[in-house]
Amino acid sequence: MATSTAPKSLLRPMTFPRKLLLGPGPSNMSPRVAAACALPLLGHMHPEFVQIMDEVKEGIQYIFQTNNSLTLAISGTGHAAMEAACCNLLEPGDVILVAWNGTWGERFSDMAARNGADVRIVKKPAGSVFSPQEIEKAVTEHGPRVVYLTHGESSGGTLQPLDGMGVVCRRHGCLLVVDAVASIGGAPLYMDKWGIDVLYTGAQKVLSCPPGASPISFSAAAESKMAARRKKPVSFYLDMGWLANYWGCDGQPRRYHHTAPISNLYALREGLAILAEEGLEDCWRRHRRCAELLHAGLEDMGLTLFVDRPEHRLPTVTPVRVPTGIDWKEVSQYVMKHYKVELSGGLGETANEVWRIGLMGHNATPDNVRLLLRALKEGIDHCRSKVHSSL
Amino acid sequence: MATSTAPKSLLRPMTFPRKLLLGPGPSNMSPRVAAACALPLLGHMHPEFVQIMDEVKEGIQYIFQTNNSLTLAISGTGHAAMEAACCNLLEPGDVILVAWNGTWGERFSDMAARNGADVRIVKKPAGSVFSPQEIEKAVTEHGPRVVYLTHGESSGGTLQPLDGMGVVCRRHGCLLVVDAVASIGGAPLYMDKWGIDVLYTGAQKVLSCPPGASPISFSAAAESKMAARRKKPVSFYLDMGWLANYWGCDGQPRRYHHTAPISNLYALREGLAILAEEGLEDCWRRHRRCAELLHAGLEDMGLTLFVDRPEHRLPTVTPVRVPTGIDWKEVSQYVMKHYKVELSGGLGETANEVWRIGLMGHNATPDNVRLLLRALKEGIDHCRSKVHSSL
Repeated sequence: MATSTAPKSLLRPMTFPRKLLLGPGPSNMSPRVAAACALPLLGHMHPEFVQIMDEVKEGIQYIFQTNNSLTLAISGTGHAAMEAACCNLLEPGDVILVAWNGTWGERFSDMAARNGADVRIVKKPAGSVFSPQEIEKAVTEHGPRVVYLTHGESSGGTLQPLDGMGVVCRRHGCLLVVDAVASIGGAPLYMDKWGIDVLYTGAQKVLSCPPGASPISFSAAAESKMAARRKKPVSFYLDMGWLANYWGCDGQPRRYHHTAPISNLYALREGLAILAEEGLEDCWRRHRRCAELLHAGLEDMGLTLFVDRPEHRLPTVTPVRVPTGIDWKEVSQYVMKHYKVELSGGLGETANEVWRIGLMGHNATPDNVRLLLRALKEGIDHCRSKVHSSL
Repeated sequence: MATSTAPKSLLRPMTFPRKLLLGPGPSNMSPRVAAACALPLLGHMHPEFVQIMDEVKEGIQYIFQTNNSLTLAISGTGHAAMEAACCNLLEPGDVILVAWNGTWGERFSDMAARNGADVRIVKKPAGSVFSPQEIEKAVTEHGPRVVYLTHGESSGGTLQPLDGMGVVCRRHGCLLVVDAVASIGGAPLYMDKWGIDVLYTGAQKVLSCPPGASPISFSAAAESKMAARRKKPVSFYLDMGWLANYWGCDGQPRRYHHTAPISNLYALREGLAILAEEGLEDCWRRHRRCAELLHAGLEDMGLTLFVDRPEHRLPTVTPVRVPTGIDWKEVSQYVMKHYKVELSGGLGETANEVWRIGLMGHNATPDNVRLLLRALKEGIDHCRSKVHSSL
């Protein structure tokens, strides 16, 4: 039987420009991470690979500041970790309270509803955060078994204060799930001290790894809820019972579950190692310093930050308002064309309202801040001069 | 607040040996694929990346021999593609007939049951395949909406003949799902001509890519069934409605759904390009020739192949019986220690019964066959001499 012919598009070399990714993620890989991606494959059950998995686990425990034994990386990108939290923790009929102040609350609500949960929402506009009092009021009203909060809301650029939220949840007998995809490593977070029960993140932000392996951790209380499930989770791929075994978290001999994304775990191991070498506190400080430099520079240019209160600003992703009369997209295209720098638009509520500037991991340097400010100013001036000349 | 200290295990370089992976997967990456893994990241919505996604799609259409527009790569390893097939196609109460002749039928049954399907099973021992008559008899008995078959059953080493199965399924108004994780590129398969409705595979076998992005394709009939769903799939991450849009399969402007595993898609693009350059038919022939060379060599050594009939042998993964009195694991360990070659054990029914030898993609060369045969013979001789000297 004859075959159809090979597509011509594949018969030429793959070429594309090197860009500086200063959007909300991915950030650029560090050279060490890139080198790790190209290392020869090992089998997914080989002892050398199991050791790398163990080191990844220790690294995640460190960046999450947790001693949870059920700590591992999901074999997918950040949304897969969100889904793993959802589908393992929630059972049909469970009431979950989602604190929704941007795209990630919306996404978690969608996933929870698909899993049959009874989703209750407490909503605030993008750019604002929740107080423990607001959460306690909503918890009292809805009586949820699980509460969801976004630590780093990259659509609205907020850093949700979490200290005290665990106490509220424990007082009302519910579990606390936190999304830290955009914030981990870029702002203080103490999973155990703050009483967070489920925490997850992605690889392509502060860790400066390619997306595809996503850290997650569950407290003993979350494990108890999962152990008491009436039915298995719908997902086999994300079933925490199987994954706990594959990642050596249950004290049993490891059984084959699925083939892990081997190269992504090499990269994640290296990204975690780079963070461990710098030290978590120094890494938090570096991100804070770069963000402050950026914020000052933007205000010097006469621009307005989307988040009013400095203490609620996410250091890793900064939304800044697009001035009246300027087309955000034209400026972004100018910056890409002339500097090969990514400058993102808004997302969800903030679409067309803001640019979002990411300074994460390998990319969080004063030099990149200065380059971005120069490029943005030029882009805005270019658009303004076009507007004027067309009047 | 003080942080816990960084784990010492991360503060030393990552080192491990280069191995020749002649198990059932992963296979070794080709140098071009490894180089692609280290390329600088692009944004997951950048035009250059969208072009790579388009090329990946064309490459998958080619290796699947399909014109289906709903053709893309799932952002996870092979099991994620299996789960995507399951959770999008099946609704609670749907009857599915699973042809189970090894581990993959078992896995698909598990996933289908989690999705609420009414799972009926037609079972044969590992090492045997199904005839169209056997499938038609079971379809007549159970009246399923969906039939599942494994093309390359890597646990039993069988290549399931598929020509004629699509006709049976269409005659009875059901859809045909085929798992080709272990076979694609290594044995003839014509998705459209054979009337397959859903086909999926992995990246780490004949494509010689790192695991983490997994090709899948749906026929128009499968799309119709999905369009008529009463409820959304439980998985948001794997929701084919969203993914069809993100992969440009629905004719609408692409919306952000999730961050794709960017480097894995670079690698997949390169793996598909290497296969396109060789040509699908030549690639099938190379795998067939290497398998025949291996089979002859094993029989020359007095060993017995697990699958009796040559036409039912999977060219990519060969199970061979462990001779009486020999410990399979000891031989595998010998071969790893002295040659750094992976020689796998059995899986499921074939555990402890066989070694499994994989010759896939970059690794499918006559030189590798000869090396494996020499190493295996030495390993067996070594174990025999130990047995004798202990008598």
